[in-house]
Amino acid sequence: VTQEQTVAGLGERALVRRIRDLAGVPPPWVLVGIGDDAAVVAPVPRRFDVLTTDALVEGVHFDFALMQPADVGARALAANLSDLAAMGAEPRTALLSLGLPPTLPVSALDDLVRGVMAIAVTHGVAVIGGNITRTMGPLFIDVTATGAVHPRKVLRRSGARPGDEVYVSGSVGGAAAGLMWLRAHPGGRSPDEPAMADAVTRYRRPEPRVRLGLRVGRTASASACMDLSDGLADAVGQIADASGVGMVVDAGAVPLHAAVSGVRHEQDAVVWAAAAGEDYELAFTVPRRRRRAFLAAVHGTGTVVTRIGEVTRERGVWLRRPGSDEPMPAGFLHFA
Amino acid sequence: VTQEQTVAGLGERALVRRIRDLAGVPPPWVLVGIGDDAAVVAPVPRRFDVLTTDALVEGVHFDFALMQPADVGARALAANLSDLAAMGAEPRTALLSLGLPPTLPVSALDDLVRGVMAIAVTHGVAVIGGNITRTMGPLFIDVTATGAVHPRKVLRRSGARPGDEVYVSGSVGGAAAGLMWLRAHPGGRSPDEPAMADAVTRYRRPEPRVRLGLRVGRTASASACMDLSDGLADAVGQIADASGVGMVVDAGAVPLHAAVSGVRHEQDAVVWAAAAGEDYELAFTVPRRRRRAFLAAVHGTGTVVTRIGEVTRERGVWLRRPGSDEPMPAGFLHFA
Repeated sequence: VTQEQTVAGLGERALVRRIRDLAGVPPPWVLVGIGDDAAVVAPVPRRFDVLTTDALVEGVHFDFALMQPADVGARALAANLSDLAAMGAEPRTALLSLGLPPTLPVSALDDLVRGVMAIAVTHGVAVIGGNITRTMGPLFIDVTATGAVHPRKVLRRSGARPGDEVYVSGSVGGAAAGLMWLRAHPGGRSPDEPAMADAVTRYRRPEPRVRLGLRVGRTASASACMDLSDGLADAVGQIADASGVGMVVDAGAVPLHAAVSGVRHEQDAVVWAAAAGEDYELAFTVPRRRRRAFLAAVHGTGTVVTRIGEVTRERGVWLRRPGSDEPMPAGFLHFA
Repeated sequence: VTQEQTVAGLGERALVRRIRDLAGVPPPWVLVGIGDDAAVVAPVPRRFDVLTTDALVEGVHFDFALMQPADVGARALAANLSDLAAMGAEPRTALLSLGLPPTLPVSALDDLVRGVMAIAVTHGVAVIGGNITRTMGPLFIDVTATGAVHPRKVLRRSGARPGDEVYVSGSVGGAAAGLMWLRAHPGGRSPDEPAMADAVTRYRRPEPRVRLGLRVGRTASASACMDLSDGLADAVGQIADASGVGMVVDAGAVPLHAAVSGVRHEQDAVVWAAAAGEDYELAFTVPRRRRRAFLAAVHGTGTVVTRIGEVTRERGVWLRRPGSDEPMPAGFLHFA
């Protein structure tokens, strides 16, 4: 019988060294990386700094029965890169703050950091620092990510104007469908059905729309943007609130993930998918005269966008069905 | 009977609005503050960005029986500003990531944020964003702070050279003595004895040495610096390790807080105080030829420094007593 080494057994300094080794050699614009009191980074000339932080808590945002530690690490960074993408920013650095139960195996920590690094390497992000602490409660991973954006190319939530078109990238409801499947099929195996297998992957390893946000931002072709981390309904509601406008979303136009039909009846599939969180897609509003520039920016990013509705002068967000409008459901709320 | 409103009852969006109101109006260099996907900030011309993150976890770093929520908030930001000070950086922004038990009263959250803001206002820090999540475990507050530093004026850990003098700011052991007193006197009252009252304040409301770090950094008069968040022994040990040198610390020169003599015998007071964490002082190494510049930089900061030892070529950190040297005790380790 081999006894697995725990993080408590290894000690804090050794853990920091381990993470530093896994993080690899930082790029030349990182003057001081992991291992000092703070990191020091050269800013990008003529760009502003963009900063965001997002925490995942065991038992609230993930469950080790449904996800591997590497998935958790990947998703933690992906959530932050999605926030940067929604601002039109190019991601640059990440700080990793970990709250670890003393009994956590060191191998699980390694895998978690490897998951972070998989996403970091894909998007050219340098992990430059962080913090490790013990917790007597559930594991938490809190990532702060920074990026760079041209000060006049920032995608805010507040720029939507009446008459703008509403777009969403990719598809919605996939992550939630994947999570439902995982909950119904304990044991860690993957679905055979291709659409559901893709949904499970979208839940475990979401792909932040970094390139899409960056290109739309650079072309200044959208009037507002927000990511779908808390669902489509939440995103359009928040853009409408911040912009002082309303929206009508065409229920028939919402691009449902192919797996949604496997878990919900057609009748409430759109409402369910719109309220579901964890889809790291982007919602945009686009002035009609910028439509061509917007679609040109999207082209070649590897992501499709779908026009789903229109911005209205009257406040309120509505889901339009043949013959009737209904209020858009509330989004996914962490405290609800 | 009035029932206190909990954070779960208020909901996430309302909590974010509440924190935004408490954070006040951001300075003009904050292009986007609380309430979008990410914050956008103009960098300081000709300066590098400095970033650090530090989390406090209930039951590990604090106990609501011994500290008020406002103290917890203040300490969370102070710990981060201390890290920035140790790099010679001027603090600018903070992001506040909170993991809240659903039963937490909204009034406790308000007080916690007010505690953060008390330190933020003192040091000109703008709270520009963050994250709120539910946790089924202990409350955690994870602060990321950013600052600015001239690229050639960075205070690292790795610059200590043989022959340099070792200095520490303020006094050591005060926070630990205050914590000991609080643990021995449950009920929330404060000590009558002035030295112990000061020690309790140092534990609850540490003052990060922002001005000191900034001035020493600007004059480039120290060869290395680290803060004492994990104790003096840890700080000198880490500077020695990072610099590839050793140190001899004169036990008789270590400036003990006046309250230490009330809780420890003279014999082991220095060892105890050196191993105790939570003192947000700074340790410096200073080349002899820079001593005058260093003391001039310190002068007028409102903080005293004390010479406590010397950097040696031979590795290892020693505590010098009349007639004998003993190995410096290990510092405070969160996983030990």
